[in-house]
Amino acid sequence: MDKPHGKNVLFSQVKIDDAFWSPRIAVNRQVTLAHEYEMCRTTGRLDAFKLDWKPGMEPVPHIFWDSDVAKWVEAASYALAAHPDPELEQRLDEVTALIASAQQADGYLNTHFTAVEPDKRFTNLRDWHELYCAGHLIEAGVAHAEATGKRTLLDAVCRYADLLTRVFGTGDGQLPGYPGHEEIELALVKLYHATGQRRYLELSRYFIDQRGRQPHYFELESARRGETARGDYSYCQAHLPVRQQETVTGHAVRAMYLYAGMADIARETGDQEMAAACERLWNHLTLKQMYLTGGIGASRSNEGFLDDYDLPDDTAYCETCAGIGLIFWARRMLQLGCDRRYADVLERALYNNVLAGSSLDGRSFFYDNPLASYGTKKDSQGRLTGETRHVQRSEWFGCACCPPNYASLVNSLGDFLYTVYGDNRAAVHLYIGGEASLTIGNRQVMVRQQTRYPWDGQVTIQVTPDKPAAFQLALRIPGWCQACRLQVNGQDVADAQESGGYRLVARIWHAGDQDVLTLEMPVRRIYAHPSVRACQNKVAIQRGPLVYCAEQSDQSVPVRHLYLPEDAAFQASFEPELLGGLVAITGDARVAIPADSLYGPASQTESCPIRLIPYYAWNNRQPGDMRVWLPVAR
Amino acid sequence: MDKPHGKNVLFSQVKIDDAFWSPRIAVNRQVTLAHEYEMCRTTGRLDAFKLDWKPGMEPVPHIFWDSDVAKWVEAASYALAAHPDPELEQRLDEVTALIASAQQADGYLNTHFTAVEPDKRFTNLRDWHELYCAGHLIEAGVAHAEATGKRTLLDAVCRYADLLTRVFGTGDGQLPGYPGHEEIELALVKLYHATGQRRYLELSRYFIDQRGRQPHYFELESARRGETARGDYSYCQAHLPVRQQETVTGHAVRAMYLYAGMADIARETGDQEMAAACERLWNHLTLKQMYLTGGIGASRSNEGFLDDYDLPDDTAYCETCAGIGLIFWARRMLQLGCDRRYADVLERALYNNVLAGSSLDGRSFFYDNPLASYGTKKDSQGRLTGETRHVQRSEWFGCACCPPNYASLVNSLGDFLYTVYGDNRAAVHLYIGGEASLTIGNRQVMVRQQTRYPWDGQVTIQVTPDKPAAFQLALRIPGWCQACRLQVNGQDVADAQESGGYRLVARIWHAGDQDVLTLEMPVRRIYAHPSVRACQNKVAIQRGPLVYCAEQSDQSVPVRHLYLPEDAAFQASFEPELLGGLVAITGDARVAIPADSLYGPASQTESCPIRLIPYYAWNNRQPGDMRVWLPVAR
Repeated sequence: MDKPHGKNVLFSQVKIDDAFWSPRIAVNRQVTLAHEYEMCRTTGRLDAFKLDWKPGMEPVPHIFWDSDVAKWVEAASYALAAHPDPELEQRLDEVTALIASAQQADGYLNTHFTAVEPDKRFTNLRDWHELYCAGHLIEAGVAHAEATGKRTLLDAVCRYADLLTRVFGTGDGQLPGYPGHEEIELALVKLYHATGQRRYLELSRYFIDQRGRQPHYFELESARRGETARGDYSYCQAHLPVRQQETVTGHAVRAMYLYAGMADIARETGDQEMAAACERLWNHLTLKQMYLTGGIGASRSNEGFLDDYDLPDDTAYCETCAGIGLIFWARRMLQLGCDRRYADVLERALYNNVLAGSSLDGRSFFYDNPLASYGTKKDSQGRLTGETRHVQRSEWFGCACCPPNYASLVNSLGDFLYTVYGDNRAAVHLYIGGEASLTIGNRQVMVRQQTRYPWDGQVTIQVTPDKPAAFQLALRIPGWCQACRLQVNGQDVADAQESGGYRLVARIWHAGDQDVLTLEMPVRRIYAHPSVRACQNKVAIQRGPLVYCAEQSDQSVPVRHLYLPEDAAFQASFEPELLGGLVAITGDARVAIPADSLYGPASQTESCPIRLIPYYAWNNRQPGDMRVWLPVAR
Repeated sequence: MDKPHGKNVLFSQVKIDDAFWSPRIAVNRQVTLAHEYEMCRTTGRLDAFKLDWKPGMEPVPHIFWDSDVAKWVEAASYALAAHPDPELEQRLDEVTALIASAQQADGYLNTHFTAVEPDKRFTNLRDWHELYCAGHLIEAGVAHAEATGKRTLLDAVCRYADLLTRVFGTGDGQLPGYPGHEEIELALVKLYHATGQRRYLELSRYFIDQRGRQPHYFELESARRGETARGDYSYCQAHLPVRQQETVTGHAVRAMYLYAGMADIARETGDQEMAAACERLWNHLTLKQMYLTGGIGASRSNEGFLDDYDLPDDTAYCETCAGIGLIFWARRMLQLGCDRRYADVLERALYNNVLAGSSLDGRSFFYDNPLASYGTKKDSQGRLTGETRHVQRSEWFGCACCPPNYASLVNSLGDFLYTVYGDNRAAVHLYIGGEASLTIGNRQVMVRQQTRYPWDGQVTIQVTPDKPAAFQLALRIPGWCQACRLQVNGQDVADAQESGGYRLVARIWHAGDQDVLTLEMPVRRIYAHPSVRACQNKVAIQRGPLVYCAEQSDQSVPVRHLYLPEDAAFQASFEPELLGGLVAITGDARVAIPADSLYGPASQTESCPIRLIPYYAWNNRQPGDMRVWLPVAR
């Protein structure tokens, strides 16, 4: 490699102390984790690890249940690492021991294929989520060991991963397969980091590079099952070897996990061709397939991508897990290069699509995150049923991937703030209050952020090296920001070099040096590319990283009749009592006067007030219409 | 009843001789009917009537196959009535004899429930289309007898209907049921007219009035099958007794057939309450649930209605059969009252939604008729798959209701032109060239229309009574027409009374009297009610009764980037070589210049030409994008 890859600063080195995030993390730790544990317990997901299921018993341990418990372990481990909690630690001890107790003598660890269909082990990698579950177990084992120093689960998943290294591969007697639902690729890289065992990295690389090769493994294995092959594997990104893939396809969550794994491999092995494939896919996703909220995967039918620019608002699927996967991928792209394109998308997905995934009280969750809600009910296939029902969060899901994934993300938020490049540059990607301990070259540097972000664009960054240290502090100037001001120790810095959208402050840092970055944060009108048909003649409102929406609770007229003039002024003001405290945007809008007939002359409009709230905060009051994209008033 | 109901003038009294319609009827007669016969033959639909199916044989006669053959018989009979054709008559003789040969000793006539599931007869009226098939057989029997005087099929369906009068009803030992898929109601009224047997009218009234009563028949019969009841029967309009229904619900084709039957009963029995129910449903449909093309039933999932004003363009289902059913209903509403609201909708559905149902060459058909096509493929459930494929007509369908229904309509088009009210008024609803023989009071009156409609708004109507006769000729002034001129025998008539949107020419008519009605037909911009979210900030173009669209073949820029200014002038000119000859509309539009990013400032636009064609004519060239509703240029 001709340039050093960035080293991610892990959440364990970062202490969040932030007016916006700390209360959210606390709610998740104090409410959500307990709720999710109860859900795993009462639905039978925990008991499944007892392996005492017998034919005829209900419920039948489902092929993806293990992953839900594993994600809870991972999330709870992150929470525990940040906040010692003997009760939670004991619960984790019990759960990890229970999981480990289900391991078979050869290392295999999967409740469904041990208790329910023992003869089906590794016979349908395409559909049965077996390696996906393994991946989440591995992540859980790594997280638990890092949080507690206890190796119960880590040792178990190492034994399981060792079994996988024997079973899978292109050698004699091995299965030349790979998962239909990716995830284990990035998990194995974590396991490599946790253990130093390069065979786990090699297995990850094998899974990624074997994918989509001919003869096609999913054809071979469906023939062995006596089934007709499906023929098209773009749904699971196995239609081509990954290095040849140019467009994001299929199931969005799977895609994100794969691309994150590809970026890991590109970084760990210095594989430029793999990095180039990541870059191509990134550009395709972010220039043609991404919602304004950072949501991805427009369609419920494949939980994934539609045609380019086909981004309908009210049927937008935008699974929470896909947004989280995008954040995972973006963080890894930032390690491949310090470019704000990645951090802008990471921030967009985090503050909008993903943050909407949980209610403010931490007790209910969105699986899909549409950009409009009109009270039209969809059935389990996402088909409009003609019945009226507003979209609302749910306490749990049969396929419960999103809630614990959200908990993992929020409790490891520190993972996404900083990257250290080489021995002389530290980049700040996200402006979130707290302290981080960075290793830059041979110096230890404390970086302390203070900010009211995202409500206010002023960020104070105090830098405290253990000894005076020369390095560049790279401060991201977000893509949404048109004007900013940078002061170092009270002096304006107008001539700082810029690179990839980061302002580089290069100096010898001394304890107590202080940068003040002020990002102007006006209310902005956003328009979509004209090929996005759903957004033609529509406008959205963004302030800072937050996308806003009109929710019925805030309006005096029907949301569906609201039009937004192109020239009206907006006022942004912090409302401490509204939805936990937020900056609401008010202004003058137009409301259409309903016509007498269904078709006729253009409707007249009249003036009306409008109040917009951040998209993440919608559906925390009575259900009602919601809209991110509003028609422009003519 | 306090006013006489209109008597419909049947197609047999009307000879179409029209520049627009005659070639279409000829193509249907000469190409489509033969094609459809072949399809019925090769798919096994005809052979099913041999009743020689045995378990294990493929194909299995489907529960709705009989209806496809019956509709072909009906359509071919109409064609034969208008154009003697010994070959077609012989084919009809064979097919009707074959159908009649499948009748059981007790009168029962259904291939599936005779050959495949004989123990299931009348055990699932809700789902199994048994009475729907019976209805179509009855219509076929009536049409065949009227066309040929031969009673083979008519006698058979009378015996079948007689069986139904014994099986169904609220008497001891009878099933208090009714069809899940309506159709037989209007068919039985036809049978009543063909035979004079009032018991058929009574059975129709029974089916309609029994519908939705408690205890609910579909609950009783599902309990007998050992199944859990569904609970909500709005899908098949059986959620309430029909007199209490206020909104159109569920499957659109079923709804139209029911409402047509309700209007029949209101008329035949002078039932004002039933007429009021029809009027309520009509208003709901046409004010909140109808596409600009007259297409109805927005959703593929239920083949029916969504929420009010929920009329998406690219996923519009708008089944051809639903548009045809709407035409049937509108004709019957016109018999309840001479009001152009009904005829306007009839014309809208006929010239747009329904006419699009067949290719110009008569060999392929639309089942659903979206108002936009973007090359996004949908699967069999209507779910977007993310694969690119433009919407195109098909040669046939597994569920093949639409092609023969279209053939029936086109070959009986004369049915929809005239109604005689009482003994002194004849109304002209549609302006289509040809001759009609009307009985007005005790006079026989020939009415001859000459026109280039819909390309030109001038209609010459020659009235020739057998003796001088005093009556009102009611000429519809279409709702789309803002200005018109009426001349009688060369003299302007400015003071003619108007009633319900009809200009009443009251005089003593002499042979050779001639009206010339000139309807101004400018290009008009149409906007939707502001609650139609899919059409906000969009405009459609209509000229006369025809809705226009932008198809890719006619444009120099991508259809999806076209915007239509609110003030640009249009030119309408007849292009004889284009798609069989049509009036195309050209003008100046704007095309958006694609942006570099997915989200950012508003796109710039630049001037470009646009050419629009009538919606009915789309998809007769290479597949490409199509759009009825175009965004307004800002």
